[in-house]
Amino acid sequence: MIIQLKPGLTEKEKSALLEAVAHIGYKASEVQTQFRQYLVCVGKTEFDIRRLGTMPGVDDIHRVSDPYKLVSRKWRVEDTAIDLGDGVVVDRQRLSIMAGPCSIESEEQVEKTVEHLLKNGIRIMRGGVYKPRSSPYSFRGLGLEGLKMWSAIAKRNGIKIITEVMHTEQIEAMEPYVDIFQVGARNAQNFNLLDALGEVDKPVLLKRGMSGTIEELLQAAEYVFSNGNEKIILCERGIRTFETASRNTFDINAIPILKEKSHLPVVADPSHGIGVRRFVADIALACVAAGADGLLLEVHETPEKAASDGQQTLNFQEAERLYRKVEAVRKAVVG
Amino acid sequence: MIIQLKPGLTEKEKSALLEAVAHIGYKASEVQTQFRQYLVCVGKTEFDIRRLGTMPGVDDIHRVSDPYKLVSRKWRVEDTAIDLGDGVVVDRQRLSIMAGPCSIESEEQVEKTVEHLLKNGIRIMRGGVYKPRSSPYSFRGLGLEGLKMWSAIAKRNGIKIITEVMHTEQIEAMEPYVDIFQVGARNAQNFNLLDALGEVDKPVLLKRGMSGTIEELLQAAEYVFSNGNEKIILCERGIRTFETASRNTFDINAIPILKEKSHLPVVADPSHGIGVRRFVADIALACVAAGADGLLLEVHETPEKAASDGQQTLNFQEAERLYRKVEAVRKAVVG
Amino acid sequence: MIIQLKPGLTEKEKSALLEAVAHIGYKASEVQTQFRQYLVCVGKTEFDIRRLGTMPGVDDIHRVSDPYKLVSRKWRVEDTAIDLGDGVVVDRQRLSIMAGPCSIESEEQVEKTVEHLLKNGIRIMRGGVYKPRSSPYSFRGLGLEGLKMWSAIAKRNGIKIITEVMHTEQIEAMEPYVDIFQVGARNAQNFNLLDALGEVDKPVLLKRGMSGTIEELLQAAEYVFSNGNEKIILCERGIRTFETASRNTFDINAIPILKEKSHLPVVADPSHGIGVRRFVADIALACVAAGADGLLLEVHETPEKAASDGQQTLNFQEAERLYRKVEAVRKAVVG
Amino acid sequence: MIIQLKPGLTEKEKSALLEAVAHIGYKASEVQTQFRQYLVCVGKTEFDIRRLGTMPGVDDIHRVSDPYKLVSRKWRVEDTAIDLGDGVVVDRQRLSIMAGPCSIESEEQVEKTVEHLLKNGIRIMRGGVYKPRSSPYSFRGLGLEGLKMWSAIAKRNGIKIITEVMHTEQIEAMEPYVDIFQVGARNAQNFNLLDALGEVDKPVLLKRGMSGTIEELLQAAEYVFSNGNEKIILCERGIRTFETASRNTFDINAIPILKEKSHLPVVADPSHGIGVRRFVADIALACVAAGADGLLLEVHETPEKAASDGQQTLNFQEAERLYRKVEAVRKAVVG
Repeated sequence: MIIQLKPGLTEKEKSALLEAVAHIGYKASEVQTQFRQYLVCVGKTEFDIRRLGTMPGVDDIHRVSDPYKLVSRKWRVEDTAIDLGDGVVVDRQRLSIMAGPCSIESEEQVEKTVEHLLKNGIRIMRGGVYKPRSSPYSFRGLGLEGLKMWSAIAKRNGIKIITEVMHTEQIEAMEPYVDIFQVGARNAQNFNLLDALGEVDKPVLLKRGMSGTIEELLQAAEYVFSNGNEKIILCERGIRTFETASRNTFDINAIPILKEKSHLPVVADPSHGIGVRRFVADIALACVAAGADGLLLEVHETPEKAASDGQQTLNFQEAERLYRKVEAVRKAVVG
Repeated sequence: MIIQLKPGLTEKEKSALLEAVAHIGYKASEVQTQFRQYLVCVGKTEFDIRRLGTMPGVDDIHRVSDPYKLVSRKWRVEDTAIDLGDGVVVDRQRLSIMAGPCSIESEEQVEKTVEHLLKNGIRIMRGGVYKPRSSPYSFRGLGLEGLKMWSAIAKRNGIKIITEVMHTEQIEAMEPYVDIFQVGARNAQNFNLLDALGEVDKPVLLKRGMSGTIEELLQAAEYVFSNGNEKIILCERGIRTFETASRNTFDINAIPILKEKSHLPVVADPSHGIGVRRFVADIALACVAAGADGLLLEVHETPEKAASDGQQTLNFQEAERLYRKVEAVRKAVVG
Repeated sequence: MIIQLKPGLTEKEKSALLEAVAHIGYKASEVQTQFRQYLVCVGKTEFDIRRLGTMPGVDDIHRVSDPYKLVSRKWRVEDTAIDLGDGVVVDRQRLSIMAGPCSIESEEQVEKTVEHLLKNGIRIMRGGVYKPRSSPYSFRGLGLEGLKMWSAIAKRNGIKIITEVMHTEQIEAMEPYVDIFQVGARNAQNFNLLDALGEVDKPVLLKRGMSGTIEELLQAAEYVFSNGNEKIILCERGIRTFETASRNTFDINAIPILKEKSHLPVVADPSHGIGVRRFVADIALACVAAGADGLLLEVHETPEKAASDGQQTLNFQEAERLYRKVEAVRKAVVG
Repeated sequence: MIIQLKPGLTEKEKSALLEAVAHIGYKASEVQTQFRQYLVCVGKTEFDIRRLGTMPGVDDIHRVSDPYKLVSRKWRVEDTAIDLGDGVVVDRQRLSIMAGPCSIESEEQVEKTVEHLLKNGIRIMRGGVYKPRSSPYSFRGLGLEGLKMWSAIAKRNGIKIITEVMHTEQIEAMEPYVDIFQVGARNAQNFNLLDALGEVDKPVLLKRGMSGTIEELLQAAEYVFSNGNEKIILCERGIRTFETASRNTFDINAIPILKEKSHLPVVADPSHGIGVRRFVADIALACVAAGADGLLLEVHETPEKAASDGQQTLNFQEAERLYRKVEAVRKAVVG
């Protein structure tokens, strides 16, 4: 059960509510986000919800049978829109393309990518400065200095930045330079990281874990929301199965399922979802046809020379061909 | 290595070829299909392929490193088209919709479905008369009598029939009434059934196994082809993973990968791929966007009353809305 | 619900029972096995089971909530023992080792294997004469002639034979020479084959499918039982997962779970379960420790020279070392 | 390639070595652990390893083709022993049982568990004070205060403590009270946590990720080792598959495979591996038979009343019956 509190409610009203909740044997968690205040109440006994709903200080009240609560569609019927400022919004009214290289490499690379984005009307750039690596001996990214350089160029050009954060200790330093914090598949159940991102007033994009269920992705989102941050984007990026012909098995089913179960925007990462450059466009178009609200795409001027893992990276020409088709498919589907 | 033999080659020429193949330590399998004669040669030693290529009786010769041979794109560059007669063709130039109920139930049901298909310009009807069931106590379909009834109505209306064959002993009796034999996921590696379908001159649609790899699907096709039947259609229908929010995990990646690896038409079964009625249209559109050459769709006038398993079945109105979008997406993708 | 009928019941008594079952809205399937006659009744309404239980002709009656019925422990509490004759029994009172080569190759090979078995007190020999192969161009076994030769040697030495049957058409010819019919993982849901094996009075060993659930294995057994054959052995042989360091992921959990859910003997195939010769003994011992009632083991005098796939085959010395440890572990566990 | 440096080598010798490595186009990482100093060199060109091996300051040198290096058996042939002090050692010479509750709950609970351990000659106690939870609204453990209380009782009784660390910020405070840091399945690729644990001189037990490969587990170990900590224990705890009859699919194959690929001790967690109390003993015995060097076992005086998730927890009597069989099986296997 979720109780949304009235903006101006008094401490006394809140106490009365907490007492009433305890009285029916429910455990209440107080949630204060950048927008609202809630009581999330977990328990099992049956009772008449109207008795609580009419108490002073209550704005709205709902039963939510899902294991996740605040991110559930059962709680919030209207879609959530994430405003990045300067007219850049991630929501269900448009398709948000987030394109860029696997790793940020140099000023020149960033400049060229920004130019490519501007030419194609794309407002969000992806790129890695902290890279999760299976081997401790691999290149782990340019780090904070790379991010600062990138951010300066992006801001100058009205481009927003999405990049992966791997560790709570990175958050504070990254914050001024980042527009969307990305949580990678390997950290999909790093609950301390999720908690910490709940305390920041910046959008968070959550990638599904390699063996993460759809429900677990929504519960990860619940961590962020219940710690205070309502600005969450969900991302399908493929799961691990027995099939070895592709890098991951992209779970296209997850797109309509997530859109039904939650009010949050749902984007897709076809680049990692299939992991093979010459098939990325096919999967990207499939994502759009299935209803994705956005695409994370790896693009690089010369994928063959990319600092890391160019296997699924499109070059600028391939990407432009894709952008045009993406628009046409979107139109065909939305009608 | 595959050697395509000249139509008129003499026994003597063939003997000389077989001897030459044996000489280099390769094992040759003679393949005679409804169209052509081949020698499929398996071995490991390196040799100059031109020495064999210039021998009399050789039409074409190619090395094929894939574990499957005759169905490989490395052997045949042009796409295979499956002609069902009366202007109905399954190939890569058009999108073939195959719609119909899970099970054939009654004359009335067939009549109504045929009417729905004709109204929407669909020429192939799917339906089950032999149903694979987890439990021996479930309804197993109307069998041959149902097929005969269905076929009579379909022929009268110029509609082609695709239906599942479960057993070699069913083939002969079914053959006059069937336009495409379907092999289900549970029989994906029933090699005796595949062998027997290789001896029939009717198209065969092969569904991928529940835990079947893309390579295994192609090897199943190789069984049919090498036993004499070149008319094969490949079908992605979802694989089994840990995710329980959908009935299967539809492997959208398989569509472009199969199209690259093979010259055969590649169709998709979104109904079983997600297994949830209200999401089937999203996945169907995704299949088309990813390049599927056809769709298997479960439709029924009243899915709630279907004899078996209406969970993923669209009603006629839902199906019609989907057909229109399918066309629009196909246009957007093909350009 | 299962109703076990009295051996001598009259047609009139049966009719009355069928009518009573129909009256409560249940669908009854009549099952006649080599031992008994049952009515398996499927339905949903609640009713007082005692009303049926007191009717004439009823020997025993039970509700069974599992999707499988006759093979369920909820129906039969005592363990099933499979008597192969000549004092060879597969049951839960002893550990039945079934050892032998992947493929039957020659008289000499069979003689040597039999000698190895006799020396070690093993009474059941495994071996393939019909081999399921991913590629149609691979060696498919010696077939019926090989089986006859093998059987002659085995009978002379008091050794029982277990071998794979792939197709209903093979059953009749194989039957005189086979002591246990094995159904392979690829045919785990070949329902026509299961039906046909239900009509034979020979034990059937069912391997779990590559992506088969424990429940599906039990439902496959239900097919055989409900068609008339109570002599069934269940076999865990590993499932398909993302892990590539072993050929399959051996699901050791399945052993105690199957033993609880069913009254049938449960054996294990560690050779295919891990697929790597030098680890087979470790997994075999684990199977015994987990409670397996038998082991299928690939052994060959010279695995390096085996006709097919010697990767997981032990040589005679390795096998003998294992047999000794198997006995010690069995003793340690049973106490 | 790994170069083990001589304890007393000079800076000049090291510089010469680094230069020689750079000269052949390899990238060297300097590794200083609590015991030794290494250069881990990654590159591709072929060269004569003896040229480097004879240089001053080199103690040992080896090519390691595995993606992991210092934890590979190809580098170190002798088994690694982890000494916890007071005669408690985790290695391949004995079976180390680590038993205790899921969560630390109270002084009384700890006292009773310690008593149970002492009675059965067990020296290592497991228990959670920081609990990873799918839902943010669940109990997350007693935290540091609970750990201090637990540690005081354990030290008094000569019992060692293993407990999960979830976050780098917890390490420093936990360190004085912990004997083995456990990294849970959800943090199996939390590389920042692994890095930080490499800087501590306390043993680290690494659980395999839910969809982690055996290779990824070894690469996680490489993170810890290459950051300075050689005291690592590997733990198999089950992977995520399609099977729902058990909580996880325990990968028994991983035990012998890990023991061959690495020199580190390999323990198993049968409690989570099957997740069903009445089957835990069967799987525990299987682990021992397969060669596990230790067992993590959930035990509680009254599992029904445990603060968290008693589904796979044994009570003291069940545990004691298991300990006795464990010993017998171990003897049967080691001989």
